Amino acid sequence: MTTLLDRIGSLVTNDPSYGDGSPLGRLTDAALVVDAGGSVVWAGESRNAPAADAYVDVSGRCVIPGFVDSHAHLVFAGDRSAEFAARMSGQPYEAGGIRTTVRHTRAATDEALEANLVRLLAEMRRQGTTTVEVKSGYGLTARDESRALALAARHCDETTYLGAHIVPAEYEDDPAGYVDLVSGPMLEACRTYARWIDVFCETGAFDRDASRAVLDAGVRSGLGARVHANQLGHGPGVQLACEAGAASADHCTFLDDADVAALAGSQTVATLLPGVEFSTRSPYPDARRLLAAGATVALASDCNPGSCFTSSMPFCIALAVREMGMTPDEALWSATAGGAAALRRTDVGRLTPGARADLVVLDAPSHVHLAYRPGVPLVADVWKSGHRPS
Amino acid sequence: MTTLLDRIGSLVTNDPSYGDGSPLGRLTDAALVVDAGGSVVWAGESRNAPAADAYVDVSGRCVIPGFVDSHAHLVFAGDRSAEFAARMSGQPYEAGGIRTTVRHTRAATDEALEANLVRLLAEMRRQGTTTVEVKSGYGLTARDESRALALAARHCDETTYLGAHIVPAEYEDDPAGYVDLVSGPMLEACRTYARWIDVFCETGAFDRDASRAVLDAGVRSGLGARVHANQLGHGPGVQLACEAGAASADHCTFLDDADVAALAGSQTVATLLPGVEFSTRSPYPDARRLLAAGATVALASDCNPGSCFTSSMPFCIALAVREMGMTPDEALWSATAGGAAALRRTDVGRLTPGARADLVVLDAPSHVHLAYRPGVPLVADVWKSGHRPS
Ligand SMILES: [Zn+2]
Ligand SMILES: [Zn+2]
Repeated sequence: MTTLLDRIGSLVTNDPSYGDGSPLGRLTDAALVVDAGGSVVWAGESRNAPAADAYVDVSGRCVIPGFVDSHAHLVFAGDRSAEFAARMSGQPYEAGGIRTTVRHTRAATDEALEANLVRLLAEMRRQGTTTVEVKSGYGLTARDESRALALAARHCDETTYLGAHIVPAEYEDDPAGYVDLVSGPMLEACRTYARWIDVFCETGAFDRDASRAVLDAGVRSGLGARVHANQLGHGPGVQLACEAGAASADHCTFLDDADVAALAGSQTVATLLPGVEFSTRSPYPDARRLLAAGATVALASDCNPGSCFTSSMPFCIALAVREMGMTPDEALWSATAGGAAALRRTDVGRLTPGARADLVVLDAPSHVHLAYRPGVPLVADVWKSGHRPS
Repeated sequence: MTTLLDRIGSLVTNDPSYGDGSPLGRLTDAALVVDAGGSVVWAGESRNAPAADAYVDVSGRCVIPGFVDSHAHLVFAGDRSAEFAARMSGQPYEAGGIRTTVRHTRAATDEALEANLVRLLAEMRRQGTTTVEVKSGYGLTARDESRALALAARHCDETTYLGAHIVPAEYEDDPAGYVDLVSGPMLEACRTYARWIDVFCETGAFDRDASRAVLDAGVRSGLGARVHANQLGHGPGVQLACEAGAASADHCTFLDDADVAALAGSQTVATLLPGVEFSTRSPYPDARRLLAAGATVALASDCNPGSCFTSSMPFCIALAVREMGMTPDEALWSATAGGAAALRRTDVGRLTPGARADLVVLDAPSHVHLAYRPGVPLVADVWKSGHRPS
């Protein structure tokens, strides 16, 4: 059973051996064949398309790979919209920040946490995201972190253990004890549910040595490394990520030349999260500088209830073009193939034979409209593993 | 036949005599009754709601007035996404700007223009906009301008004659002759289809005297005045708008203290269009300064194929909060009641007895989420004149 998607006005394959030879590997008047196993088996010009068992007419619209959102915090409870409103209104607000969410998350039932997670994943899917990485980080006990990851693993294949998000209130006077917990018993409780380990390497969270200890313990347990790096100011996070062979250094807002060179000279992807800067009125990272140096850049949402509650990859693309010096082509690549690179995946983020048939039909003639028409819901149809969602 | 919308978690009435006494007149645990004529007949707390013939459960979600988008250019043909991509990529592009769209619009069939208009209006409706002002301005002949307005009047009750958008190529050597045409035969051909007259008062478009002549001619013909003012630099547009008693001065990006004082001391609304600044990488207008002076501020999309092709009022609200110093409450007011004021309407932009039952159910507990969750399509349901769209 094969299905032919035909009359694709513009097809982005993300394989430069196709079409125009650009990184997007863009074809016009194109077609795509997917098989019953949910994989792409053929991509090319419509007039060369092979026969298939079923036929779908895309009516000249644009088809792109599904978005790969490689950074999201979706297992949480509690509402922080009042904190947001106060921040944007310049009013004082007695907010506990992440600790507020930790308190609500610990108090929530499994059912409530799962319902919120499922709701946000469905919302992401409707906006074209077909692969999502989900982090823990609002439990901060062995029991609550492993609960979060077990829930996430039920719904996502990319799960990240972030026990080292902040030091919880009960360890305020013993941060070294908390690092031991995160690197020891908590890791032991979480490792089977997680693919990755992450640490918030930042002043006020975890310093260089503590971050390194956490990452090393995770890697010894078979997890891949990722780092929240250089978000609020310059720090050691990016260098640490590159030295530790992390798949991604996320945020990268405050970089010096050595950081840029380290990223460009490593396999570590620079994952930029412009929704955070939008929602906190902070300066944006400089994507142009990273691209010019030869670094691989990904875009992700960082969807979370505190610093950035967008789940929209099209919005992140529009911001990347407006605020970070990316072209519409570069921003699309970073939101699809870039996200896949940040997760060290080769089966998503592209639409060529062997890839998963995760794709988005846009109600637009080309992907440029994602930035040209900011805020407009242009996602007409989403296919995941060759199937349209019910 | 009356319908009770009950279990509204948060209801924004835009009438300060309701609820919390703020300009939003916000009620919690609220209900709304609409009649067969499409009007609101009752608003208040759920426990006091009268009986009705039909019942709709809003399930604790938020209800706000439908957005009033008081500035849009929707009658056009042609695609300018390549121009956008070049602009945002810093590449040269031989674009004719508005003249490119004029050429395509003149060449288009009535059917093509109407199909594009209907598509964009439907897209706006899905995003919660229930009142839209539509301008001409891409025809620039008596025949093409009246054609655009006749099409617009079939679908909208707010239509604006903008023959004075730019001087078309064929009048390049005779701008005074074009002003005579716009104020004479073209106005005569257009006036029956339009409620408003507008002029682009800007260096390179129409100067103060020409703008004044156009507005005066329109007002003598029974049209209300509006002005595209102070968009690209400081100019006489805002002062002209206030002197002419215009309902709105639109853009207001470059203002001096006298402009701000004139707006604050007049009935002329300052309509801000932050999607334009987003899509052209320009500095944003300062809403906070206008509000502090006591001016009435509206938010609108300026949806058009050149400088800003968003149709999303939620996106404009998110930008207003991020970039223009508005609180989430102020931004919502400006996108609803503010737009109504800019169109001198009292029947829309509020949800109290006598108003049209134009309303939006958000998939969120409060309107703050429009800014807190930028780019996320939160509009769950839209009612227009008491009916859900088919
Ligand atoms: Zn994060
Ligand atoms: Zn305009």
